[in-house]
Amino acid sequence: MIDAALVGVGAIGSMVVRAILEDYPWIDLVAAVDVAPGKVGRDLGEVVGLEEELGLEVEDDLEVALVESVPDVVIVTTSSRLGDIFDTLLTSVGFGSDVISTCEELAYPWIVDPAAARLLDDAARWAGVSVLGAGVNPGFMMDLLPAILTLPCTKVEGVEVRRVVDASKRREPFQRKIGAGMTPEDFRDAVSTGRITAHVGLEQSAYLLAEALGWRPLGMEVSPVEPVTAEREVATDYVKVEPGMVAGVRQTLRLESEGGRRIDLLLEAYVGAEDERDEFLVKGRPPVHATIRPGVQGDWGTVGSILNMIPTLLGADPGLLTVVDLIPRRPLS
Amino acid sequence: MIDAALVGVGAIGSMVVRAILEDYPWIDLVAAVDVAPGKVGRDLGEVVGLEEELGLEVEDDLEVALVESVPDVVIVTTSSRLGDIFDTLLTSVGFGSDVISTCEELAYPWIVDPAAARLLDDAARWAGVSVLGAGVNPGFMMDLLPAILTLPCTKVEGVEVRRVVDASKRREPFQRKIGAGMTPEDFRDAVSTGRITAHVGLEQSAYLLAEALGWRPLGMEVSPVEPVTAEREVATDYVKVEPGMVAGVRQTLRLESEGGRRIDLLLEAYVGAEDERDEFLVKGRPPVHATIRPGVQGDWGTVGSILNMIPTLLGADPGLLTVVDLIPRRPLS
Repeated sequence: MIDAALVGVGAIGSMVVRAILEDYPWIDLVAAVDVAPGKVGRDLGEVVGLEEELGLEVEDDLEVALVESVPDVVIVTTSSRLGDIFDTLLTSVGFGSDVISTCEELAYPWIVDPAAARLLDDAARWAGVSVLGAGVNPGFMMDLLPAILTLPCTKVEGVEVRRVVDASKRREPFQRKIGAGMTPEDFRDAVSTGRITAHVGLEQSAYLLAEALGWRPLGMEVSPVEPVTAEREVATDYVKVEPGMVAGVRQTLRLESEGGRRIDLLLEAYVGAEDERDEFLVKGRPPVHATIRPGVQGDWGTVGSILNMIPTLLGADPGLLTVVDLIPRRPLS
Repeated sequence: MIDAALVGVGAIGSMVVRAILEDYPWIDLVAAVDVAPGKVGRDLGEVVGLEEELGLEVEDDLEVALVESVPDVVIVTTSSRLGDIFDTLLTSVGFGSDVISTCEELAYPWIVDPAAARLLDDAARWAGVSVLGAGVNPGFMMDLLPAILTLPCTKVEGVEVRRVVDASKRREPFQRKIGAGMTPEDFRDAVSTGRITAHVGLEQSAYLLAEALGWRPLGMEVSPVEPVTAEREVATDYVKVEPGMVAGVRQTLRLESEGGRRIDLLLEAYVGAEDERDEFLVKGRPPVHATIRPGVQGDWGTVGSILNMIPTLLGADPGLLTVVDLIPRRPLS
């Protein structure tokens, strides 16, 4: 049995609780931490919307929770940003717990804050624990999975991943975040003022995939966030998008390595996307063309990608790891 | 640089040589062993059909080759049967080399010969080396890859894999092996006399996938080898198949675990297969439906699946391993 503490009882954290109770008999939830005044001191079952009480109170003090529960692993689902969770990570590591987090920047933190990443790595090695950023994207769809799809290839010249998400099926905050329903002018404005931001994790995925392939990144070009405009009217439970209005976002990334080898990532997330899919093109010997259709539901996918990694993480070498440290990979060439 | 010795300079072994020379700057081929009188004593380059000599003579004595070349890893591409390669494995392990092999039965040898598997595991642990059976099938398509495709799923109720191979694109021995061009009567006769045999590896894949999922196998049903008959005339470089004649083979397997959880494998290999593909259906939360279309070319796929595993194998824990020991997996539940 693996004892787990949860930090962050938001939308994803609540799904983590439900999943553990229903499908993970080998995980025992021993603590839950959140700082929201409306959650602290209440029973976790009640906070996540279950019928039953779980006999576990949401606490606001991580150190107290760790001392009382001594978890094997801390699951952190609070923020996409490394800076926001850095203290939580360091505290957990200091207490001798492995850590896994949905934090997108943690999937490959060396490109976000190399000094913080080095410090975390040192602390984790010193404490003999492992720290991992995981999730469905980054952490699976645009990095781990395409890396696995290249395993039968003796030669790889290029990898292209296209993830097209129908945002109609996602939560309201997600639909708002991608500007669904805005005019193109409002969208541009929202991008320039930072209310609409790029998907956090695209660069992480590119670096992870390059590392798994043994490619040294020579250059990377990331597009700005562009609007996808609706061609027909689309109505979801939360927004209505007229033709010509913004339905969502589009981003591209190209990473180049020696000998013209390339990674191309395309991410589209918009309401009313018709051919929702994850598509993978490996130019190589043999070539591989794979499609997941429709795409994998992102929220449950993230919860699964986190929880399923835990047993392997607990047996892994200490340090700040990435998901491609847990699969077969090639040396630099 | 990883020093590798090759045992078996047949069709796949020759492709291993070509791939290493062209695409694996981090593998150095230091010895080649084969017992065929027409190959022994000749230059490896010549034997595998290269324009250039490689300055490496094909030897017939594995022990001499190991003593002279001291490889980090021995690549064994001689037989599908564990019994055929057992001595080669034990000798290589005894010399302190890691071993990787295309031998289908080695992918999960415990169901073939538990005593031999235990002996190999003991010997490998004692010598501090790892032994692995890998390849595209078993080793990737029906085990490692579907296991990876379940990583985003919090719940998995069933996994179905359908591999449909167009045998027209494969080597002549493969087309003969599946009975292409035979009458249905001749086919039945060939099956009953053992001239046409089941694909070696289907059971291995089922056990590997169950293990990665943390499922205890409760029962397994494997169909006999059935003929796929041609609906139209099909001509390949090697055989001509009239309508009503045998185009190839079909096999199914069902593994059952607790709570009605199931693995279903379907393998069809016949000349003229129109929708050549590898298809994966995960019944779970979220569900995953992936298709690789057309299917991955099996010979190059096997070579890639072997060579790309080597760096990870060399860093792995000692013992008799399986491909799912090298990826994130779930504990028994």
